[in-house]
Amino acid sequence: MSNPEIEKQLAPLRERVQEQGNLVRELKANGAPELDVKKAVAELKARKKVLEDKELALTPSVVSFDRARMEDLVKRRFFYDQSFAIYGGITGQYDFGPMGCALKSNILTLWRQFFSLEEQMLEVDCSMLTPEPVLKASGHVERFADLMVKDVKTGECFRLDHLIKQALEKLSKAKDATPALQAECEDIIIKLDGLNKQELADVLAKYNIKSPLTGNDLTEPIEFNLMFATQIGPTGLVKGFLRPETAQGIFVNFKRLLEFNQGRLPFAVAQIGNSFRNEISPRSGLIRVREFTMAEIEHFCDPALKDHPKFSNVASELLTLYSACNQMDGKSAQQATIGDAVANKLVANETLGYYMARIQQFLHAIGIKPECLRFRQHMGNEMAHYACDCWDAEILTSYGWVECVGCADRSAYDLSQHSQATGVRLVAEKRLPAPKTVEVSEIVPNKQTLGKTFKKDAKAITEALAKLSLDDIKQVETQLAAGGQYKLTLGDGATHELGNETISVKHATKTVHVEEFIPSVVEPSFGIGRIMYALLEHSFQCREGDEQRCYFTLPPIVAPIKCSILPLSNNAEFQPYTQKLAAALTKAELSHKVDDSSGSIGRRYARTDEIAIPYGITVDFDTLKEPHTVTLRDRNTMKQVRLALDAVVGVVKDLATARLSWSQVLEQYPAFEQQETTK
Amino acid sequence: MSNPEIEKQLAPLRERVQEQGNLVRELKANGAPELDVKKAVAELKARKKVLEDKELALTPSVVSFDRARMEDLVKRRFFYDQSFAIYGGITGQYDFGPMGCALKSNILTLWRQFFSLEEQMLEVDCSMLTPEPVLKASGHVERFADLMVKDVKTGECFRLDHLIKQALEKLSKAKDATPALQAECEDIIIKLDGLNKQELADVLAKYNIKSPLTGNDLTEPIEFNLMFATQIGPTGLVKGFLRPETAQGIFVNFKRLLEFNQGRLPFAVAQIGNSFRNEISPRSGLIRVREFTMAEIEHFCDPALKDHPKFSNVASELLTLYSACNQMDGKSAQQATIGDAVANKLVANETLGYYMARIQQFLHAIGIKPECLRFRQHMGNEMAHYACDCWDAEILTSYGWVECVGCADRSAYDLSQHSQATGVRLVAEKRLPAPKTVEVSEIVPNKQTLGKTFKKDAKAITEALAKLSLDDIKQVETQLAAGGQYKLTLGDGATHELGNETISVKHATKTVHVEEFIPSVVEPSFGIGRIMYALLEHSFQCREGDEQRCYFTLPPIVAPIKCSILPLSNNAEFQPYTQKLAAALTKAELSHKVDDSSGSIGRRYARTDEIAIPYGITVDFDTLKEPHTVTLRDRNTMKQVRLALDAVVGVVKDLATARLSWSQVLEQYPAFEQQETTK
Repeated sequence: MSNPEIEKQLAPLRERVQEQGNLVRELKANGAPELDVKKAVAELKARKKVLEDKELALTPSVVSFDRARMEDLVKRRFFYDQSFAIYGGITGQYDFGPMGCALKSNILTLWRQFFSLEEQMLEVDCSMLTPEPVLKASGHVERFADLMVKDVKTGECFRLDHLIKQALEKLSKAKDATPALQAECEDIIIKLDGLNKQELADVLAKYNIKSPLTGNDLTEPIEFNLMFATQIGPTGLVKGFLRPETAQGIFVNFKRLLEFNQGRLPFAVAQIGNSFRNEISPRSGLIRVREFTMAEIEHFCDPALKDHPKFSNVASELLTLYSACNQMDGKSAQQATIGDAVANKLVANETLGYYMARIQQFLHAIGIKPECLRFRQHMGNEMAHYACDCWDAEILTSYGWVECVGCADRSAYDLSQHSQATGVRLVAEKRLPAPKTVEVSEIVPNKQTLGKTFKKDAKAITEALAKLSLDDIKQVETQLAAGGQYKLTLGDGATHELGNETISVKHATKTVHVEEFIPSVVEPSFGIGRIMYALLEHSFQCREGDEQRCYFTLPPIVAPIKCSILPLSNNAEFQPYTQKLAAALTKAELSHKVDDSSGSIGRRYARTDEIAIPYGITVDFDTLKEPHTVTLRDRNTMKQVRLALDAVVGVVKDLATARLSWSQVLEQYPAFEQQETTK
Repeated sequence: MSNPEIEKQLAPLRERVQEQGNLVRELKANGAPELDVKKAVAELKARKKVLEDKELALTPSVVSFDRARMEDLVKRRFFYDQSFAIYGGITGQYDFGPMGCALKSNILTLWRQFFSLEEQMLEVDCSMLTPEPVLKASGHVERFADLMVKDVKTGECFRLDHLIKQALEKLSKAKDATPALQAECEDIIIKLDGLNKQELADVLAKYNIKSPLTGNDLTEPIEFNLMFATQIGPTGLVKGFLRPETAQGIFVNFKRLLEFNQGRLPFAVAQIGNSFRNEISPRSGLIRVREFTMAEIEHFCDPALKDHPKFSNVASELLTLYSACNQMDGKSAQQATIGDAVANKLVANETLGYYMARIQQFLHAIGIKPECLRFRQHMGNEMAHYACDCWDAEILTSYGWVECVGCADRSAYDLSQHSQATGVRLVAEKRLPAPKTVEVSEIVPNKQTLGKTFKKDAKAITEALAKLSLDDIKQVETQLAAGGQYKLTLGDGATHELGNETISVKHATKTVHVEEFIPSVVEPSFGIGRIMYALLEHSFQCREGDEQRCYFTLPPIVAPIKCSILPLSNNAEFQPYTQKLAAALTKAELSHKVDDSSGSIGRRYARTDEIAIPYGITVDFDTLKEPHTVTLRDRNTMKQVRLALDAVVGVVKDLATARLSWSQVLEQYPAFEQQETTK
């Protein structure tokens, strides 16, 4: 993006962003009314969007990418395809065929090695069906919603922002549209993301927007919760949802996990699993779907100690950082080592920085192009309700920059919420530098009178009293002192009045050696489907001079099948060698595919290239002679070498596990020069 | 079970089963009314149950197993535990903690190697959310239900068979119960499984059974579908279910998969994933749950060719077979090689037999006790509506024999159902021994009149005509010949009348070289949670003479963590060695755990035994001296050897991957004799 010609075109757009960014800063600094700030931020986002769209329109790799051709290959060789297609299909759901499934499984295996094993994480596997109270506490029941409107007659649903955009675009393109109307429409479209429910309803009314399919009236905007609801058990009374993220399963198990880790912090918990979001109108292939695999890490640490013991290992990793500040100034992303970024306080702490660097290393390892990866910081206003600092790993695809991994400091939000909802203290302890004397207050029940007065409820009352907070106890004390009654509400909703005759408040001092605190959480969260999609785009190639011959350059470590075995023809003499090789590859735990179908060798190579097989062994007439030899072919360069039959499996194993490179193979073994025929 | 003392006690029970088995055979042979056969079968099952219960009551390992102690360990070290426990928990849902998750993941990795890789299966990963029409075609919407009753006031639900059993047991234990009543109750309880909805309703009425919790009246029996229902998309109009099995995802993708396999049969497709069943009252821990992981294989083959190319590899595998015949005769299971069983037609075909043998090999490899595994054949009457022959791998646990892997010949049932529901031909082709001349009939539309008459519908009509079956075409011909109109119904439900002026029927002969057929399916289906549970029971042990010290003898290949590193004390000098070992184990991709907490070495060994770590490396004062050495300890025998620091990681790697046995290690390295202190 340092092309001067391009920068010249972008300069005025950058200026417009910066101008607005400065306005936002000024408003915030002056404590302007919230509404004014929000409006200014919406305009800022709109200008950023114009800048980004222009940048993408000037990026050759994005513009020239032939997505239709790649999708054709993906479908034809069943990497993935729409689910239930023979039943007409369901939008936003995909089935992974043999190649997609193996690619996904290899990415996840590498992920486990790269994160779980390397960092000694605790991996868990929690339920997907989640009862409502859990997701109430997490905020999902209330806030995890998109706005939509319905056709009042047919019930057809439309995502509100998409609908307005479409309607206004149509309006401004109409023959009778005045320049004033066109400007008005354009203005609304770019501000759309920042408008609230009422503002959007006003737009609907003002332009009298109807159903684009039927022309019928539309309902008022409705908040549509994106979770799939169901009932757990037969009574119909226990409402549940399919989890919208895997994280909550980890938080509700925090106590057990801390105990498993012998009470020590920091520790990290990993989970790989499916989550579900009932999108109103899924689109963009694998990028916005209703059912998807996530790999999430929750790193629990002392909020006062967010440094990381292994940070020095990654400090020199160079990242492309698109800071909130740069975004407000209309500047492009900048490169910095993560060491400098943390030192300059651009990235909040070492733990967050460590994970960002590791995320980048992982994405590079599976084959994401380094120049198409950046970390974008959330701007203050778009940060999730819980996050202190958040950087998204975004990957450039033909759909633009796509958020593929979130890396957020969620602070103590989730554990606090679940503590509050359940009354279970989700805390850790740390040793104090020196013992401390503290005042403790507790409520002492008068067992005898309590028992007499409340009979069978006395036990529950005693337990509830023991759980009261310090604030509650102070309140009790005040009320008792005034001769009043304290009204205690039990878990089942029953209330009881307690006075001086049944309870008293006792004060004492205690020496404590430890202090309790709610741990902070740093959360790297990987969208596996999105990463896979980006990886397929980045590795899609067509052979020079033969545009029909497309293939994927997936690195061997994630390639679905590591090696093909191709007998030159269906001559029966080749069979024992083919079988021997297949057995040896199985023993070496290398996935492979024998293609002994008819068809020229070149045509069969092309078929194996399509499914990204990095290496191919050919059995030919020379193989039959002693010493037995075969050829080994590299997918990316189409170069071949000749080597001993007995050596080839070992070489492929080393290549597949990155212990050997193809250029080393070329040095070690004689080239095999016969050109492969492509037709 | 060949203990003569035990057999003496079982003999009369065996006789009673055989007597009833003969009656069933006789009734069937004589074509007795269905109701009579069903009643006789119910009685047969009841007698079998009595026999089996008695057998279990005489099996020492089942009776003496201390399940509570094992469950305490499982919970304490978080192998798994109830989901959402801090919210009160949900029955039938479990979260796998670090140890359970790793055990599961290791079992699945081995499964993939053992089946997918070894047999070159196509692995897929399909959607869980499934639209209703798919599960209507599969039969689940109509038939996948249990009977329940509700408390008319509170809405509390009870699984009907459980409720009746409980009520009658109570009734027959009452003080005033006459011997006649007791016999009556006992008779109903043992026949319970065979009673239909009306018969169960009659029992409810006769004994005036009420809600056991409130004494309120109960509703009539209700069929409760066990699938979790939800809505897909925002309209509320697209009904969907969480899949109750993974198999359907494979069947609906059959065409794509056959194409991927270049049109050839046989081939097998594998899928690992979660399924969901909304049990009315889940129980028995991991054995009956609402959300569970399955690993399923669908092996598609020509129904006329069910032999298996690799059958000879397994023919001598000795299986414990509990045939339908043995069950009817009250005999116990018998041992036979799978080769003999197929030759004798006891097992229907080689493909089924091959998978049974491979299932056994797999279960042995992960650590299931051979003497606690049997294959039970479904009796004619309990076979699923689609199965030709079905053998369940049952594992003996403290809950009795538990079905853990089903192995069924599903014939062409599923593909036929989905073909019928969608009109998409789910068939394969095979080359005929010799070309064949066949008569073909097709409907020729008169394009001009069709276009004029039906305008925009003409295209859809032409397409629908092309899809008509031979039978349909015959019908058309008859009606046209009679001067009538053929009524054609389109996919959208619209009907059109077509006569001689718009269509005609053409006959021709054609030479065909291939014939189409619907493949048969053999399905091994693994319940991973149940297998894990059985494996934990089989590997649970307490140290002789120290019953408090329990552990799991999980084989290294599935053990969650392969190796522990224990510095003898928290002396700082040990740290560099501990770190070096940890780094080397990570590099060798061996999961490990450093326990440098305080506590005696014996106590720490006991902690690692609890989580089934098979090998332990201890760093002690001799490690500091040159040449650097460590001790290596074996969990099962508690024996130790002393070996070079540099050699130990390689040895552990070989042990963990079964390339080396502990007895070989004992031969190679000097024993380390210092006794471990247990307190």
